[in-house]
Parts: sequence; structure tokens; C-alpha cells
Amino acid sequence: MAGNSFGKLFKLTTFGESHGVAIGGIIDGCPAGLTLDFDAIQNELNRRKPGQSDIVTQRKEPDTVEFLSGIFEGKTTGTPIGFTIHNTNQKSKDYSHIKDTYRPSHADYTYDQKYGTRDYRGGGRSSARETASRVVAGAIAKQILKDIKINAYTSSVGDIYLEKPYQDLDFSKTESNTVRCPDNAVAEQMITKIKAIRKEGDTIGGTVTCVLQNVPVGLGEPVFDKLHAELGKAMLSINAVKGFEYGSGFCGTKMKGSEHNDLFNADGSTKSNLSGGIQGGISNGMDIYFRVAFKPVATIMQNQDTINSEGEMVEMHGKGRHDPCVVPRAIPIVEAMAALVLADYALLRRQESRDW
Amino acid sequence: MAGNSFGKLFKLTTFGESHGVAIGGIIDGCPAGLTLDFDAIQNELNRRKPGQSDIVTQRKEPDTVEFLSGIFEGKTTGTPIGFTIHNTNQKSKDYSHIKDTYRPSHADYTYDQKYGTRDYRGGGRSSARETASRVVAGAIAKQILKDIKINAYTSSVGDIYLEKPYQDLDFSKTESNTVRCPDNAVAEQMITKIKAIRKEGDTIGGTVTCVLQNVPVGLGEPVFDKLHAELGKAMLSINAVKGFEYGSGFCGTKMKGSEHNDLFNADGSTKSNLSGGIQGGISNGMDIYFRVAFKPVATIMQNQDTINSEGEMVEMHGKGRHDPCVVPRAIPIVEAMAALVLADYALLRRQESRDW
Amino acid sequence: MAGNSFGKLFKLTTFGESHGVAIGGIIDGCPAGLTLDFDAIQNELNRRKPGQSDIVTQRKEPDTVEFLSGIFEGKTTGTPIGFTIHNTNQKSKDYSHIKDTYRPSHADYTYDQKYGTRDYRGGGRSSARETASRVVAGAIAKQILKDIKINAYTSSVGDIYLEKPYQDLDFSKTESNTVRCPDNAVAEQMITKIKAIRKEGDTIGGTVTCVLQNVPVGLGEPVFDKLHAELGKAMLSINAVKGFEYGSGFCGTKMKGSEHNDLFNADGSTKSNLSGGIQGGISNGMDIYFRVAFKPVATIMQNQDTINSEGEMVEMHGKGRHDPCVVPRAIPIVEAMAALVLADYALLRRQESRDW
Amino acid sequence: MAGNSFGKLFKLTTFGESHGVAIGGIIDGCPAGLTLDFDAIQNELNRRKPGQSDIVTQRKEPDTVEFLSGIFEGKTTGTPIGFTIHNTNQKSKDYSHIKDTYRPSHADYTYDQKYGTRDYRGGGRSSARETASRVVAGAIAKQILKDIKINAYTSSVGDIYLEKPYQDLDFSKTESNTVRCPDNAVAEQMITKIKAIRKEGDTIGGTVTCVLQNVPVGLGEPVFDKLHAELGKAMLSINAVKGFEYGSGFCGTKMKGSEHNDLFNADGSTKSNLSGGIQGGISNGMDIYFRVAFKPVATIMQNQDTINSEGEMVEMHGKGRHDPCVVPRAIPIVEAMAALVLADYALLRRQESRDW
Repeated sequence: MAGNSFGKLFKLTTFGESHGVAIGGIIDGCPAGLTLDFDAIQNELNRRKPGQSDIVTQRKEPDTVEFLSGIFEGKTTGTPIGFTIHNTNQKSKDYSHIKDTYRPSHADYTYDQKYGTRDYRGGGRSSARETASRVVAGAIAKQILKDIKINAYTSSVGDIYLEKPYQDLDFSKTESNTVRCPDNAVAEQMITKIKAIRKEGDTIGGTVTCVLQNVPVGLGEPVFDKLHAELGKAMLSINAVKGFEYGSGFCGTKMKGSEHNDLFNADGSTKSNLSGGIQGGISNGMDIYFRVAFKPVATIMQNQDTINSEGEMVEMHGKGRHDPCVVPRAIPIVEAMAALVLADYALLRRQESRDW
Repeated sequence: MAGNSFGKLFKLTTFGESHGVAIGGIIDGCPAGLTLDFDAIQNELNRRKPGQSDIVTQRKEPDTVEFLSGIFEGKTTGTPIGFTIHNTNQKSKDYSHIKDTYRPSHADYTYDQKYGTRDYRGGGRSSARETASRVVAGAIAKQILKDIKINAYTSSVGDIYLEKPYQDLDFSKTESNTVRCPDNAVAEQMITKIKAIRKEGDTIGGTVTCVLQNVPVGLGEPVFDKLHAELGKAMLSINAVKGFEYGSGFCGTKMKGSEHNDLFNADGSTKSNLSGGIQGGISNGMDIYFRVAFKPVATIMQNQDTINSEGEMVEMHGKGRHDPCVVPRAIPIVEAMAALVLADYALLRRQESRDW
Repeated sequence: MAGNSFGKLFKLTTFGESHGVAIGGIIDGCPAGLTLDFDAIQNELNRRKPGQSDIVTQRKEPDTVEFLSGIFEGKTTGTPIGFTIHNTNQKSKDYSHIKDTYRPSHADYTYDQKYGTRDYRGGGRSSARETASRVVAGAIAKQILKDIKINAYTSSVGDIYLEKPYQDLDFSKTESNTVRCPDNAVAEQMITKIKAIRKEGDTIGGTVTCVLQNVPVGLGEPVFDKLHAELGKAMLSINAVKGFEYGSGFCGTKMKGSEHNDLFNADGSTKSNLSGGIQGGISNGMDIYFRVAFKPVATIMQNQDTINSEGEMVEMHGKGRHDPCVVPRAIPIVEAMAALVLADYALLRRQESRDW
Repeated sequence: MAGNSFGKLFKLTTFGESHGVAIGGIIDGCPAGLTLDFDAIQNELNRRKPGQSDIVTQRKEPDTVEFLSGIFEGKTTGTPIGFTIHNTNQKSKDYSHIKDTYRPSHADYTYDQKYGTRDYRGGGRSSARETASRVVAGAIAKQILKDIKINAYTSSVGDIYLEKPYQDLDFSKTESNTVRCPDNAVAEQMITKIKAIRKEGDTIGGTVTCVLQNVPVGLGEPVFDKLHAELGKAMLSINAVKGFEYGSGFCGTKMKGSEHNDLFNADGSTKSNLSGGIQGGISNGMDIYFRVAFKPVATIMQNQDTINSEGEMVEMHGKGRHDPCVVPRAIPIVEAMAALVLADYALLRRQESRDW
């Protein structure tokens, strides 16, 4: 109920604060007999970790995952996989200035109101550091999904948009630049933009597009747990996300039914795919694609007026090492959450045999 | 797991197909001692029901709810509330033409693939008729929420937008026109648009904006079950929804942190509210507002090429009585789902006493 | 959370009070494509229904189930199965005497304390009438389980015990007498006992033994959701149950390990079966057997001193039509709950493929 | 679904194998603001740990818990509490002899059948070592429950029974002897018995009685999640448990209703308490008491015939350091599980306000 678990058959529960001893989690329901590719898991963590390039926060954390259970001789055993990532670079003193101060557009105030207390160091539980645990679980989920391809990329930074549809992109280029945009020319503009913003002591938002390919027909439950509803919840649960749309999304609201309907080919595939690969909450075998909106990071390097826990107005001086734009590091998180959703539904799908 | 339940402490489970004996549901966890306003419940159903105006489907269904349990002498008893809405206007013969035919951008194909069978009459379980059960439960949830105000309205139909921010609207006017737009001049344009579209035998999409006011601070669970993530899932679970954004939404991605941050007043309220009333997944006491994208209805009155279950190409002739635009009838559904989310979190919040 | 659901993949949610309009439920997760045997379902209800013999309550209720959804052309569709059983013989006036009076060893007092109100007619929600909904769902679960045999029987009434081990019994005889004991000589004694007790205006307890055969290896989850833990919870959730033991049970506590261990045959079966078909919470392919303790029915036809809701001492005069011994009618309920547990785990087992 | 979580509002998820890196868990839903007594937590672990006396296994494990999150400046923060207990005394070589051999009445065979693999070292996940994580969570739950008293004790070892009813016992004496029986004379006999059994290289079963006092009225949900049903499941989920009874239990089946009914006092308390403090699944304010049956430990120091994974008959030579009787170390586990059940229902009860 307290909301630190995600999934049902492939269930991740996470724990940990930004500056506590460790973060980590338990994956319950990972099937037995899966030979894990540990390098692939660490690689996903590396895509998310701070300090990886000159357009992200310069904090250094090795973000090395340690597995404590559920794996024997390199294979999953079907029992819960416990894991930790120790926090090694906790400069807690950096945060004493926010101990009693509520940072604008952060969760300091709401945590204090809800819990009567908070671990203020680095944002505590509200820090996006928690998402490293999701990336670990997502990397394992990806290994279950095998042939299903999950590709997220930066589709906008501020007002710089990658206009090309995903079909015209080469996803293998996503990792070829630091902003994770698979079009190098646009990536260049985005990087320039982020550097300019950072120089101002400011931050900027952006969008991530994610494409799921080779998803078999039949994943998703058709009423409350529609496949796109779970994907939406998964994405909206990521820090700083303000919106989610799939298929034709908000643009589709301006269309007529005669324009929007996806006509069938004889094999059940469709000629167009404004539906975004899902009909009635169930995958139809076409590509699933969606877009996620990230707000600008709330921590800026400019002075801001704010209040403290006594309700007094105080001036807050921006400091610390923060991301000028969250999007480049969000790519592996978006992919991880998509993988968690798909793994859960793929396992659920397995029990739908009709052999009575 | 099969996804026909929503909520945890205030949990709705629904059943029923469009043309079966009845649809209905069970509300488990409604607190005891609540004197129900049955007229208010029926009124919400009336806002959703077909045949209510000349811009919606002309099917006639009385949509009268019968309560079977959980209520004694007009008050809730704390035990599950079972209810049914009988299907009275089932012209099943209308649907024999789709028995073996997959309607474009409907769930016929995916249901058949997933289940190996489907109740094809009127779309069966995939019909938005299921949402009548949600409206019943949402109407009860609203009665729990008392001072919290939930107001949804039509904010666009096709390319006709209500440009005014919600703060400039008088929600009491929403019900004063058939399209449920609280600005009568814009409503007039929307109605004209829908009528023109219908004349073409076509359909059109639109958006719904919803505003939640007087929400106490502290609702929502901060990691996977963020308040906006549950709202997003709730909305995306409604038939025909393609997108969800809250607060600054997709527009916020183009902003800088220095523009986007909501600075505090001394009392903890904020001067601006681009955050949309939620910080870190927890309500902060400001208005919560979000926008939901509805695609154009897939059933059009024009001929379309499609396939049958044998994979043969066939021509489908549009007929039946359908909505040219789903948005006017979606307003009470959006409100109902918002009420379900809030009721669940409000009950959860109650147990967070800090009196140890 | 309010506890009116049972199961996860094959989930039953029930509603209804003894003297409300109807009782019923929703089965969510029943696989698609199952051709239902409706006579078999009604037959299970008939085994449970009042008035079936001269040793049970003489109330008359037809207990006819009506299915509202989830079934099309005789087959399950994979969507939720809603059903109702209307209450036809509600002599509510019979219960006005307990409106303000707390019957000893009934749930009147605790319901009032918990909810601040209660539907006092016939015990309301606390009545065992609710179990009719379980029997419906259990009858469907049995049809999923096909080759698995579930046989419960009366193994004691008061101090009259059926001493024979289950292996020496012919389960086809269980229905040959009204007390449902598969040994007619012992059944005769039990029936005589119950009649004598009833003549005294009193009631008597008893035990039910249940045997599950042909259960495949591998059902059950090994830590908190051990197969026997779920069976135990299922049985303890039945009205009037005070205890549960499986395999060697309480007797096993007096044994030594060298006596208690079940040695293997070469094929993985075991020579003895004190374990009761479950090791580490997982079925091992041997017979599963357990025993359930039912207390004497609390409603007796004798006068009793008790209190009313004002805390005043009052004398209560037993009246109405009640069971002198709950056990004969509990047999189908025990079987139904066992079927629900097994169906849930059987579906869960299906997704444990190791084909990566 | 994989069953490694217990509870809903106060939810424990555990991980870890007997001889892996560590065992541990996550407690999700522990309320904020609770000042933890860490000594009390460690003390509970010490009551469970091996090597504590001369009648338990002589393995040495310090069983020191490390908290990783959810606690700040000594108080709970409302965020998940992650914790680990490192495995320090893993003599894995001790277990190479069971790598391919199925120990009688252990879970080796069923794990292999279910998962196709197992971590055979020390029983892996099926080892009762997992219960140390439960003891940690239970110790925190006890601190939430404050005035509620939870006292378990050894009530039998083999055929040596503590005949006194719990009302005649002084629970403060439970810890005064190594077998945890609060009657020193009977304890002496039990200890002598266990030592004799151990000398034979054999093991013995026993029972634990547990008494819950000062439980407020109103805990428990009345249909499937009856308070005693959850207690039963909790107890049956403990390794080696074969049975559970509460109140009059199996003995109550031999009684008449007129003997068994608990008559009320004017204040709502009852003169007798055969009901065991629960009516209709809801606590009534009287003492709750129940009894749990533990089988003899399956690992004996005698030679046994068994099979290997090839289905060949082999002789197994008992060795290693094992408990001759599990009961003394099970006392804190029983208490922990009872505390988890009560904490969950106590939090649930908090949200049942009737203030509408």
C-alpha cells in the first residue's frame, strides 16, 4: 500500500534513500533457470549513473550492484533476488542548508507534511537515486523478454525537437552521443542547448520517446490494467515526469475517425499504426510507441526565495552538483520501467492457456 | 491479475458485457455509516447514459442501478456493496455483422487473439458500457470525499479549444450545454462541429480537463504509486484515452527550471502552480489539474475495408447508433475515476497517524 | 483490504447479506474457453442448501444461481463472471428480536463495535449464507482442475469419530447418507447423535476431512504462501472453523523424526505420507489431506442470558430454523475452498516455464 | 504472487538463502515517527539464533541485523526499511553430500521439481534461516503495537505437555529456561527429553501456545481475511508447522453449543472465552490464544535410505549441526508472525473512522 512495489508476477520492491547506507530492492517472481548477463545489468546502471558525461551532474558514484540472493551458479533459482547498491559519495554536509528549508518544486514540503519528518540529505527517498534499483530490475526483465526490443531516446530538449518519426531512426546511434538522441545533428543542438542552460545556472525539460518492438499479441488486461495504462503509470512514477501519451496521443484528438482508424492487412497487422500497437488495452503485435514529458530539474544554481519549516521566508542559494537536464540519464530508466511492465504481462500471458 | 479491479482500500471490481444480462460491480472497503444520496448516484449515471442529447448516441438505456448489499436503512454497513445495471436495450441482431469481422481500431482482433473467443455483441467487455459501473462507484466515492471538489469539462473537440485557464471558468455552467464545456460560446462551436462530423458519418476526438480542489495535503504514495501516476493510470484505463498530462504537462518540457519552479508563500501554498498540486507524488494542497486525450470513436458510419476471422478482406458497412464524439459522455467517467483514486488515498492517509 | 476477495489469478470477490436482495460474486481470472457444466454448479449449491434433509435447518431457499457475464454461448470468455443468488425466503421479522441484542458467540457485538452498525437480519454479512457464493466459484474451479479429485467428508460429530483412514474409504458413498460420512454404520451413529442434540434444542460440533488427489507436483509458493498455509487460511475463513491440521497434524508433534520422515521410492513418491503431500509448501504429488474443526453452532433453541446494545442484561429466547450441526452442509464449502486454492496455484504454476 | 511478502499495510518482503551472501528484507508501510528500540530488535534475533543453548543446533551465527534505509536519526521516516543479516558461518562444503540427493521430508525434491534447480547449500531458501528476517520485522511490529502483549511459549515437547491453562502461567518465566516453557518443572522434563532424543541422533516435535492480550476490539476483516484465518496462515507459513487451532480448537468440536457459547458480561466482555477472543473474524477484546503444531525436524543423525536426482536409491548419512527440537527457537518466530498480523490489522483499523 505504501507504494514501494511495482508489478505482480514479476514484482520489484525498492528501498533506500539518496544518502543512506545503501539503496536496493527485491525482485520477486523472476522465473528460475535464467542465466544472467551481469555485464548487461551493470551496463544499464552505467547508462544511468552520474558523472558519465559533461552534460550531467558531476557527482561520482560507481553504482555497483551486489546480488545477495536468488542466483546460484549464475542462474536464477526462482527465489527472490535481493540486491544492494551502496551509497559511496554521500556528501551529507552539502545538504545541511536544506535541513529546515523547503526547496521550491521539490518534495521537501510534502514529505514533511505527510510523514512529519524526512531524511533531508540529498532529497532522501524522493531523490531519483531510487531509480537505480529500477534499472537493475529492468535489466533483468529485459533478459526475460529476449526478442522484444525496447528502445528509448531523447526526442526533445526544451524547444529542440527530433522531428523524424521513429521509423526513420537508427537506434544503434542512441548511445553514440551524450544526450542519447539517435540523430547526431539534432543531438548536437541539444547538447549545445543544455550547456548554455547550465551556464545560466538553470535547467531545461525535454521528452523521451520509447519504442517497443516484437511484442507478441495478447499482452495486457483489458479493463483497469490496460497495457498502456500500466505503461503510463510506470512512466508517471519516474521522477519529474508530467505527461504520457501513446500512439497518436494528444495529436489524435484533432483527428477524425476515418483518418485515425488503422485498417487491417490480411495477416492481422495494420496499414497505419496510430493506435500505437494496443487495442482495447491488449497488444496487437504492431510497434508500441509512447512519449514521456520531463519537467526541468527543480534544483537550479540561482538564488530563490523560499520558506523554512517555521514558515519564514528565506533565500536559498543554489549549490551542489546537479543535472541541467534529466533526459539523457532518464533513457535507461524509461526502458527499465517498460521492461518491468512487459515482463509482468508476459508472465501473466503464459498462464492463459486454453487447453481445457 | 485479470485487471477488473481498481483501488486498494476503496476497491471496485466490475463485471459485465455490453449485451449480457447485466453489468455491475462490487465496491469493497466503503466505510460504514455513510448515508448515501441515491439521487446523486443516479444523476451521475444520467450524465453518462446514451440518448441524453442530440450529440450523443441515440441508443436508449435507462441505466438504473440496483443495489444488492452493503447498505442497510440507507447507510453503508462497511460490507461490500454489490450492484447491477441491467441491459435493457440489447439489439444483438445489430451486431451479427461483426460476429466474424474485425472492426478497425476496435478490440475485436486483440480479444480473439488473447482469449480465443469473444462476446461480439456490442463489443462485449471492451465496450465503454463497462464504465457505467465505474460511475456508480465514483458517485459513492464523491460522497466520501465531501469537501473535495471534482470538476471535469470538455476542453477541446477536434481543433476547437477552450483557451481560458480553468481559473477563469465557472464550473456550474458545465452542465448548461450538451457538450459540457463551461464556456457557452465555445460550447456552441463544439456542438456545431460535432453535428457536422456526424453528418459526414464520421467521428472526432477531444480532450477533457479535470480540476480537483480542496484536496488535503499528504495524499499519494511517493515512489511507484505517486498520486499523479494513479490518476494517469485511472484515466488511461478509460476507453479511447491516448494521453494524460498534469500541471504544466508536455508544455512544461520547454520551460526552464527558473520559470517552472513554484515559489512558496509563507503558509506553504505556492505563488504559481505549474506543479499541478502534486510534489514528489504527494498532494501539496494546491489545485490538482490534468488533461486527458480521447481519440475519435472508431465506429464510423462510412464503409471501411477490413478483415474477418479467416483473414479475408471484407467491406464493413457502418451502422448502428454511436457517438460522434465521446467527450461529452466521458466527463462523468473522468470525474468518477478521479474520485476513486482520491477516495483510495484518502482512506490510506487516515492510517498514517503519528501518534506512537 | 476489506477482505471480501480470495485468490490472485483465480480471484473470487463476494457480496451480500443473509436477508438482503441477493448474494453473489465476481470471479476474475477464470480462463477463457472453458465449457461450463451448469448442472454440476447447481448440484454443489444443492449440497449446501438449507432444507435438504432432516438433520439440517428446515429453512427453504432454492439457491438458484444466475450468471450475468463472462459466459458466452456456454463457454467462459476470460472476462469476469458475475453471478447472483437471490434471497427468496427472508423472514426478516424473525430477527427483530435480535436487532438490539447480542447473541452469545455470534458476530453481532464485534460487527457493531467495528462498523458502528450492522444489518442484523439473519446475521447479515456474518451469516454462513455468504458461503453459497464460494460454492459457485468452487464448482467452476473444480471444472478447471479436471483430473484433480477433491473429496471432503464428515469425519466426526461430537465424540463420534470415523476412525478409518481415508485410504480405506469409498468416497462415492459420501453422498449416500445425509451426514456425508462415507461409512454408513458410522454415519448412522452421527445422524442419531445430531437428532438427539436437536431434540435438546442444542447443537454439536464436528470435523471434516478433505483429500486432494492427483495434484501435480509443484503447486504452492514456498515462503509465506505455502500451499498448506493457503489451504489453512481458506478453511479458517469458513464460518465456525476453529482449527486446521494437515498430514500428521497435531499428532505428528509427538513423533520422532525417524518415525515421521517419509522415505522416497525411486520415482519420487514416498513410502509413507505423514507430510500430507506437501514439502516446503509445495505439492509433491502425493495425496494432500487435512482436517478442519467446526465448533457447535452458536444459535441454540434454549434460553440464554445475554446483553443488548445498551449493555443491559436480557434473556434471549432461541427460535428460528437452524442447523443442529454445521458439518453436513460444510462438506461442499470445504471442497469449494480447496478448489479455489488449487485453481489459483494451478494457474500460477502455468507461468513457471523454464524455457528461456 | 511468488509469495515472499506478508501483510498489506505493514508489509514484509524477505529474500535470502541459508548460505548465500545475506538474508534480509524490506518492511514497507511502517509508519513514520516511531523511535526504534534497536536493542529490542537484536534481542529477538538472539532468542532465535542458533547456538544459544545446549538443546539447539551448535552452529554459530551472530545474526546481526544492519538497517539500510527508512530510519533517520533513530526514527522511522515512513519510507521502506531495508535490512540485511549477513551469513557468516556458511560451511557450504557440509552440504556437498546433498547436492544431488533428496533428503526425506525436506523440500529438496519439490524445489527441484518446481524450479528445475535449487541452491542446495543448507537447504537454500527452504531453510528456516529465512525466519530471522521475519523476527526483525516482527520486533518492529511489536513496537508499533505498544500495549498489546504477545507471549508464546513451549506447551509440549513430544508427549510432555504443559497442562496448565495459560491463565495460570507467569510469562515472565518463559525466558528463564532454555526450552521456553514458563513452568520450570515441566521445562526440566522437556529439556531432559530433548537431550535424550538428541543422543539417539533423532528429533522430536512439539507445540507452541501463543497468547495475545490487550488487543482492541475490531481488528480483523470478516469474510476471507478473518483475524484467525490470517493468524493461521501466518503460523502455517513457518517451517515445520502442521497445524493451527485457536480458542477451543479441535476440542471444541466435541462440545455442545450450550457449553461452548461465551455468555456476555454487561461491559461486552465474556464470562468464558472458548471463542478465543475472536467472533466472526473480528477481535472482541478478550484474550486471543492459539496453538501451533511443529513436526519433528526432518534432519536426523541416523542413516536413511533415499534417492538422488537420477532416481537411484542411495544411503544418506546424517551429519551437520541441527536442532533436535525446533520448538524452543520457534517461540520468537511465532511471536513475530503474530505481531505482523496484528500490526497490519491495527493500521487497517485506523482508517475505519465513521466521521462522515
